[in-house]
Amino acid sequence: MRVGVLTGGGDCPGLNAVLRAIVRKGAAAYGHEFVGFRDGWRGVLEGGDEWARPLGVPDVRGLLPRGGTILGSSRTNPFAIEDGVARIRGTLEAQGVDALIAIGGEDTLGVATKLHDDGVRVVGVPKTIDNDLGGTDYTFGFDTAVSIAMEAIDRLHTTAESHHRVLIVEVMGRHAGWIALHAGMAGGANGILIPEQPFDMDRVEAWVESRFRDRYASIIVVSEGAMPIGGAEVLQSAQKDAFGHARLGGVGDWLAHEIERRTGKEARTTVLGHVQRGGTPTARDRWLATRFGLHAIDAVEAGEWGMMTALRGTEIRMVPLLEATKQLKTVDPALYAEAEVFFG
Amino acid sequence: MRVGVLTGGGDCPGLNAVLRAIVRKGAAAYGHEFVGFRDGWRGVLEGGDEWARPLGVPDVRGLLPRGGTILGSSRTNPFAIEDGVARIRGTLEAQGVDALIAIGGEDTLGVATKLHDDGVRVVGVPKTIDNDLGGTDYTFGFDTAVSIAMEAIDRLHTTAESHHRVLIVEVMGRHAGWIALHAGMAGGANGILIPEQPFDMDRVEAWVESRFRDRYASIIVVSEGAMPIGGAEVLQSAQKDAFGHARLGGVGDWLAHEIERRTGKEARTTVLGHVQRGGTPTARDRWLATRFGLHAIDAVEAGEWGMMTALRGTEIRMVPLLEATKQLKTVDPALYAEAEVFFG
Amino acid sequence: MRVGVLTGGGDCPGLNAVLRAIVRKGAAAYGHEFVGFRDGWRGVLEGGDEWARPLGVPDVRGLLPRGGTILGSSRTNPFAIEDGVARIRGTLEAQGVDALIAIGGEDTLGVATKLHDDGVRVVGVPKTIDNDLGGTDYTFGFDTAVSIAMEAIDRLHTTAESHHRVLIVEVMGRHAGWIALHAGMAGGANGILIPEQPFDMDRVEAWVESRFRDRYASIIVVSEGAMPIGGAEVLQSAQKDAFGHARLGGVGDWLAHEIERRTGKEARTTVLGHVQRGGTPTARDRWLATRFGLHAIDAVEAGEWGMMTALRGTEIRMVPLLEATKQLKTVDPALYAEAEVFFG
Amino acid sequence: MRVGVLTGGGDCPGLNAVLRAIVRKGAAAYGHEFVGFRDGWRGVLEGGDEWARPLGVPDVRGLLPRGGTILGSSRTNPFAIEDGVARIRGTLEAQGVDALIAIGGEDTLGVATKLHDDGVRVVGVPKTIDNDLGGTDYTFGFDTAVSIAMEAIDRLHTTAESHHRVLIVEVMGRHAGWIALHAGMAGGANGILIPEQPFDMDRVEAWVESRFRDRYASIIVVSEGAMPIGGAEVLQSAQKDAFGHARLGGVGDWLAHEIERRTGKEARTTVLGHVQRGGTPTARDRWLATRFGLHAIDAVEAGEWGMMTALRGTEIRMVPLLEATKQLKTVDPALYAEAEVFFG
Repeated sequence: MRVGVLTGGGDCPGLNAVLRAIVRKGAAAYGHEFVGFRDGWRGVLEGGDEWARPLGVPDVRGLLPRGGTILGSSRTNPFAIEDGVARIRGTLEAQGVDALIAIGGEDTLGVATKLHDDGVRVVGVPKTIDNDLGGTDYTFGFDTAVSIAMEAIDRLHTTAESHHRVLIVEVMGRHAGWIALHAGMAGGANGILIPEQPFDMDRVEAWVESRFRDRYASIIVVSEGAMPIGGAEVLQSAQKDAFGHARLGGVGDWLAHEIERRTGKEARTTVLGHVQRGGTPTARDRWLATRFGLHAIDAVEAGEWGMMTALRGTEIRMVPLLEATKQLKTVDPALYAEAEVFFG
Repeated sequence: MRVGVLTGGGDCPGLNAVLRAIVRKGAAAYGHEFVGFRDGWRGVLEGGDEWARPLGVPDVRGLLPRGGTILGSSRTNPFAIEDGVARIRGTLEAQGVDALIAIGGEDTLGVATKLHDDGVRVVGVPKTIDNDLGGTDYTFGFDTAVSIAMEAIDRLHTTAESHHRVLIVEVMGRHAGWIALHAGMAGGANGILIPEQPFDMDRVEAWVESRFRDRYASIIVVSEGAMPIGGAEVLQSAQKDAFGHARLGGVGDWLAHEIERRTGKEARTTVLGHVQRGGTPTARDRWLATRFGLHAIDAVEAGEWGMMTALRGTEIRMVPLLEATKQLKTVDPALYAEAEVFFG
Repeated sequence: MRVGVLTGGGDCPGLNAVLRAIVRKGAAAYGHEFVGFRDGWRGVLEGGDEWARPLGVPDVRGLLPRGGTILGSSRTNPFAIEDGVARIRGTLEAQGVDALIAIGGEDTLGVATKLHDDGVRVVGVPKTIDNDLGGTDYTFGFDTAVSIAMEAIDRLHTTAESHHRVLIVEVMGRHAGWIALHAGMAGGANGILIPEQPFDMDRVEAWVESRFRDRYASIIVVSEGAMPIGGAEVLQSAQKDAFGHARLGGVGDWLAHEIERRTGKEARTTVLGHVQRGGTPTARDRWLATRFGLHAIDAVEAGEWGMMTALRGTEIRMVPLLEATKQLKTVDPALYAEAEVFFG
Repeated sequence: MRVGVLTGGGDCPGLNAVLRAIVRKGAAAYGHEFVGFRDGWRGVLEGGDEWARPLGVPDVRGLLPRGGTILGSSRTNPFAIEDGVARIRGTLEAQGVDALIAIGGEDTLGVATKLHDDGVRVVGVPKTIDNDLGGTDYTFGFDTAVSIAMEAIDRLHTTAESHHRVLIVEVMGRHAGWIALHAGMAGGANGILIPEQPFDMDRVEAWVESRFRDRYASIIVVSEGAMPIGGAEVLQSAQKDAFGHARLGGVGDWLAHEIERRTGKEARTTVLGHVQRGGTPTARDRWLATRFGLHAIDAVEAGEWGMMTALRGTEIRMVPLLEATKQLKTVDPALYAEAEVFFG
């Protein structure tokens, strides 16, 4: 069989590990051949040898510890383009591709689901730094992002204590607070703010004041998508910098401003940004990504079209692609409540 | 309520994080008071203020990122001592302790189970670097050990390639190969040997030869408890060093020797040893240890005696203490078989 | 002898290691006693037991790997306060302090120099993350800051390549580009911009364009104090965020904006901020800080007032305090020129 | 000009960074072409296209963070082979190589020195993990090795304290104690033993006993080449394992045995081994290796034959090759004495 692979959406530690596992097992166990499409769905749309290259075992050597994706990525959506699906079919036929493995997040897997409905033979591998895809306990890249954020928080503790400051760490998470919750708990934050629960500035102020009575330092972790109760408008303006240029975050700066205004304490924000999604994956993410790759190629061999890999407990299972995208996986209020004992 | 806590067995990253979570939540949510017993069951046996100290919120500040256990540990077994159980009851009464939280592995939880049978109010928290306790998907400390082993393997790759050598990494795991399997897969080992499956030296030799034809380098990860088919006797002698002094490992040195003898290639062994069990926990282990602590103190408040915390998927549940110890959790052959595609 | 110690200015990995070395050696070798003043010169000004505590060997246990300073810090300048010097003399007399060790940067050592001129017995230890103090090859904290910035750059490479983006990393360095130069060279940046050399946006644009022709990715490291030729006015406005709130940086955002405007490529900025100055010191910084501490207390014992520790090659020497502050140590144009071969 | 490059001796983090800098600058600034010889002097002896490959800018992309050497290495000595020098001249002529850059340690540079005496145009770059080459303040790789050893010591502290054990860390250094001294000081060891100073077991015993009175834990760092006073014979037998197979170390195991025998305390040894010389270089080593590469190719262009790069303070200078090897650079007794205040 000749199998096409592509990676779509934002990059994520572990993508290369998935590719390596797919190619290693497909070649050794099933005699598959592989075509790697460049830049996500764009490569399949464009077709042509510039956009589709053979992937053999030598091409995936050394990929396990490397962040990013050797295939490149994009956010191109073939369903937003006239004749998109027809062009995809054309490329697959021209390249002699019998089946596709699509590795990506909500958008990439959404396209995969529709293509499957249209009869394309596709298997998915879910990918999101934010851990907000359904159907799977975790996605690779998340543990790496949490680790990087925790290391930053560890480092900030000493400055917070030496200088009696409030330090705010803005982490990724537009719609779900998983990174903030895990990194905040692992880093010993004194407050965690997530998109699922609009926050009350009076409560944040109380955390800071209580903390200062006791230890003169405070660290608050905030998801980029968190917002104050009723405060979306203020925050939207904060999403632009002094040049009217859209910035990644905004809520972190806004919080520092508000805390200084209310408490008179110095407050500083660190926006971790892209650092969270690059570099070598953690051991756990390499393990998960490798297993996703192994099971994805098994699923191709078994003809489990329209399915994707998922972690359930300690096992990898195949679940319908639709599981990933039908509903955003957000932080359960009970889980957030567990962490609240450490606030203030 | 006045709650006693103790840590038993080998140390493990995350023990301090459990203690912190227990004390923080017990004090804030339930008004508990805490007594920390030194050196595991030994402190409860000895009793007296030298062995039992009050633990308050200030005592657990800053503990989250710290490896080891501020309470100290030992392998003392009260059931191996005359009047052991009576002395334990005496200490608990003298210290006014209403309930105990025992944090430990097979031995510590085994004692806890028996004490519970004898009517002592006890809740357990499972702890093992090796990940071989039953009833829970994972234990804290395991992810840290795997990460450290993986980083060592990452470093050894460059030497293996530059010098055309076989490098053997001996990791922890007397009875179960979890660390070897996870670290070997995450580190891209060319062979993994675990206690569950006695290994065939002809096969190991074939891995080395095949690898050298292709890339001139080979890394093999071996659990300290792995052994060759029928080779226990040889390995037992290898368990002693030149002074007749018992060493942690042995199989790693034996492997290097055999590989050199059979293939003529230079082979070197690194025994990671205690480095795997010390130092700051990974983000995931801090998360798991903290949640174990939070749920353990909830269980004390709820009177769930004879139960212990367990991870199932993404949830913490309480399961009977017996679950942990009734059967060693070993590596499923199917899971090992997944990894074999990368061997040789 | 009774020796006072204080830490002033911004915090810096290694401060605690200096304190530990001073107290360990002073106590063991010379029988000194120590008083730690809180929050830099402020503690000496305030005096009183709340601001001055005895420091013994047990107080410095475990400090070697810990970032920050257990004494706290401030930017208080006694020469900016009426009767400041008299109050300092009063505190030293009241506390029975025979000599002072001042650990700090330009401001702290400037005060120390003047106090020495006024007859106070003082020895200095130079401290700056930015490495811009004179008289010494390096200061502790710098290697740690460079390491953290390099790790961030390592991580960003994968995103830059996977997404064909320009990534800008803004690092510390208001007046000197040492961190940018070292981290940029160690991280393999495609461009480095430092305060010593106003930059030409046409040249930066050319780097980006040349890089994209070849590899579709570009990473530029910029000191927070760098500025375009003739562009100070633009940048000054960029120093405020959307709330008119002063931000640490600004030039990074400005660069991303300009690069997008000129090249049409996506550009993103990461401002590393306080993460660079916190957390555990590198091995080299612990070594340097420890040796500075040991030599500082030797100098106190020897009565070398008005001197400070300095690294020259592999040796620690005592040099006049004035050496540190008489002239900012900036990046030599020849050293910057060495790095230029990697630009574009 | 056509320049040959080779790497000899044990591998070392930073070798690839040197290669990258040489090729990048030589190609861009001087229009040089490069030939990379495989496996040190062996590649030059063998000659032929299998052993000599063109090295261009694309070949050195991504090398900066990678440990090891893409050229491979060996310990082949052309002066130990009949017609060795003639064969080297033959290869250089056949490959059209005008000059050689030899990157290596005592042996490699010793060969380079003799070849220079014989009229071959050669420039050297000194390389040793152990930091024992003369003529330069430091060599690249040393800082990385010290960092790795320090991280291991950091991790072992928690086990030493939790279990009241003596932990011994055996680090590299056959003839010089630089790694033990730096890592021991940076890691807060309670004793450091180096080859330059035969140790007195009574003193080691006293350290352990004093430490246990106070804190119940002890960490001792020992160079693989350290030995007890008059104890070489005992140690030589310890250099073999139970199979009569030579092991890297030995003194660490011997120490654990002796300490247990004398004090009755549990003692355990960790032999770090090859982990110290692999993996990505620290920021400082990347900086040093890159600058060595840049200056080496400048020296080739300038015709400074028989010279090698050296670090003096913050500057790179060219010094005669003979400087590196005429005398082993050992730890000055005064420097060791500085560290002794922390022992016991």
